[in-house]
Amino acid sequence: MQVNGRHYRTIWVNENNSRVISIIDQRLLPHQFVVANLSTVKEIINAIKDMHVRGAGLIGATAGFGMYLATIEAARKSEAYDSYLRECADLLKASRPTAVNLEWAVNRQLQAISKGTSSDEKIKIALDNANRIADEDADYCRRIGGYGVQLIESISKKKNGAVVNILTHCNAGWLAFVDYGSATAPVYEAFDRGIAVHVWVDETRPRNQGASLTAWELVNQGIPHTVIADNTGGHLMQHGLVDLAIVGTDRVTANGDVCNKIGTYLKALAAKDNGVPFYVGLPSPTIDFTVGDGLTEIPIEQRNADEVATIVGRTAEGRIETVRIVPEGSEVANYAFDVTPARLVTGLITERGVIAPTRAALARAFTERAAAAE
Amino acid sequence: MQVNGRHYRTIWVNENNSRVISIIDQRLLPHQFVVANLSTVKEIINAIKDMHVRGAGLIGATAGFGMYLATIEAARKSEAYDSYLRECADLLKASRPTAVNLEWAVNRQLQAISKGTSSDEKIKIALDNANRIADEDADYCRRIGGYGVQLIESISKKKNGAVVNILTHCNAGWLAFVDYGSATAPVYEAFDRGIAVHVWVDETRPRNQGASLTAWELVNQGIPHTVIADNTGGHLMQHGLVDLAIVGTDRVTANGDVCNKIGTYLKALAAKDNGVPFYVGLPSPTIDFTVGDGLTEIPIEQRNADEVATIVGRTAEGRIETVRIVPEGSEVANYAFDVTPARLVTGLITERGVIAPTRAALARAFTERAAAAE
Repeated sequence: MQVNGRHYRTIWVNENNSRVISIIDQRLLPHQFVVANLSTVKEIINAIKDMHVRGAGLIGATAGFGMYLATIEAARKSEAYDSYLRECADLLKASRPTAVNLEWAVNRQLQAISKGTSSDEKIKIALDNANRIADEDADYCRRIGGYGVQLIESISKKKNGAVVNILTHCNAGWLAFVDYGSATAPVYEAFDRGIAVHVWVDETRPRNQGASLTAWELVNQGIPHTVIADNTGGHLMQHGLVDLAIVGTDRVTANGDVCNKIGTYLKALAAKDNGVPFYVGLPSPTIDFTVGDGLTEIPIEQRNADEVATIVGRTAEGRIETVRIVPEGSEVANYAFDVTPARLVTGLITERGVIAPTRAALARAFTERAAAAE
Repeated sequence: MQVNGRHYRTIWVNENNSRVISIIDQRLLPHQFVVANLSTVKEIINAIKDMHVRGAGLIGATAGFGMYLATIEAARKSEAYDSYLRECADLLKASRPTAVNLEWAVNRQLQAISKGTSSDEKIKIALDNANRIADEDADYCRRIGGYGVQLIESISKKKNGAVVNILTHCNAGWLAFVDYGSATAPVYEAFDRGIAVHVWVDETRPRNQGASLTAWELVNQGIPHTVIADNTGGHLMQHGLVDLAIVGTDRVTANGDVCNKIGTYLKALAAKDNGVPFYVGLPSPTIDFTVGDGLTEIPIEQRNADEVATIVGRTAEGRIETVRIVPEGSEVANYAFDVTPARLVTGLITERGVIAPTRAALARAFTERAAAAE
């Protein structure tokens, strides 16, 4: 997608050195656009853990490139090749416990790499496979856009071309993937087709990925949008100001339960209460067919309390400052995700079409994945 | 209530000069505790408008003292006494459009003052009446505590004395009233009676009254509490971590619809979805018997977009800084309140007991007010 009018992906093999991975370091967005170069597995793990990169698809792609760097590093310590590779795989998987794509990408690499007969061949396989994971991610998102845009188009027609208002939570935009995004892909596609759209962007405390990332994407793409406090969506829906909600997800269970950024469940409740369609955009690697009931089976990551107690922004003078907003002496808790039960979800927009959030429909659409999980 | 171990109200007649009104200027809380002195109607209006004081009861009490200062100022311009008084009354009423207590307090003062036969007598009447409005507010909140504590006590018994977890949104604590608070009064009373309680404090974006004010109150009172992002309450309720919710309100309609800080509706939906009792604490002046349907009849104040686009906090070095958290080029909207339909409310905790949120029950409990509105 566009940054200052130039096309970028969120991750790519460095133009000058194919053993270096370039990423957009998302931590200083929207205030500063920084490209960072990662040349070790440790740097990759750090980038995932400290959220230089974030989002289901991008974490998966980053882990894919991480395993590529692991084959380079393993080749240097030839006597312990396999154990080093496994160690890297385990560390990569542990770097963000909730992200199902992470495990998926690492396992896919392990399997591919195991077929190489020399360390050089393993490096080549790992690079090809990492690029394939990234390309697939972009392609899946493009297809999600193609299916999701039909939902927007049909609302637009019903409204005789009046602006379609779409609410989204957190960032499931192209910054969370390799390109296009999941929740945003239908919006980008609608905008490209000339459909009048406007996006309500939940700021998404505590880390403000909506205000920092989704809003920044939309500014760069030139799409009309309004940033709101997370508390606002219910009121907007009560007053007919939201035509549909589209969010992303970190993990969808075999039952269709949706694990996504904390607060998603509250918006889904409001959508249900007001008859607003509530869709989830996701590439199928995000579906975890090994999990049934999201509420009881998905452990919810608790992150550092400082993410709630402090906030990062830009002062009037242009300095990036961290300020504390909670009194000394107060406890602070930071639950990162919640689970939206399938009963509140209208449909799952995937690369294979819009699927009902039921065990049967998901198993039908992704037979091979569902079968493999049994 | 307590500040650094000393008892305060939020507003009082200055100890050294009875023509000066002292308030706690709440804008720098929780970082700095500032007492400000107001000696003109203009300063009072500014204090209400710019939220040096906020909260239903305190705004009413402040307006009461504002009308007292108006009688002092009007006496100086004797030829235009009545029109000056009316002008002050109109300006005070317009200073926060959503606050029903404001109009109520100003009208009560106008009526009382009209009975004075000299400007000196009017000043005395206005002062007595302003003190009475403030005392009544504190007394109502104390009674709300007395009724509300029974709800907490009964949950505590059911849990065999285990900690009762109470979720609250925004600040309906003593800082929003003259003393005790509405939503917090039951908690303070429970704590005083030795019942084990813990409060989940919604930070309450965009102005963060939960993190800034409610948390600060609880720190000063020594009550266990945890500050959370507004997105978190649904997840906590899904996992049985909330025993009841108690919030305040800016206006309750004759039907029992509850207008309160934006985001309240979302928490009420989550409470309903998870069988968590959802109570609203309020002194009866907050009931507006002239309004029936909250959703269609209450205009929702939109405040300055900067409240969403920026945030105020304390840097590591102790400076109070305002930082921007939304990209340049993004639109920002700031809806201040939402309406929680009566169907989502378990009960209204008032100074006359816990009332069902229905037209019939409210009219029965407050016959004289309901009749006057007809």
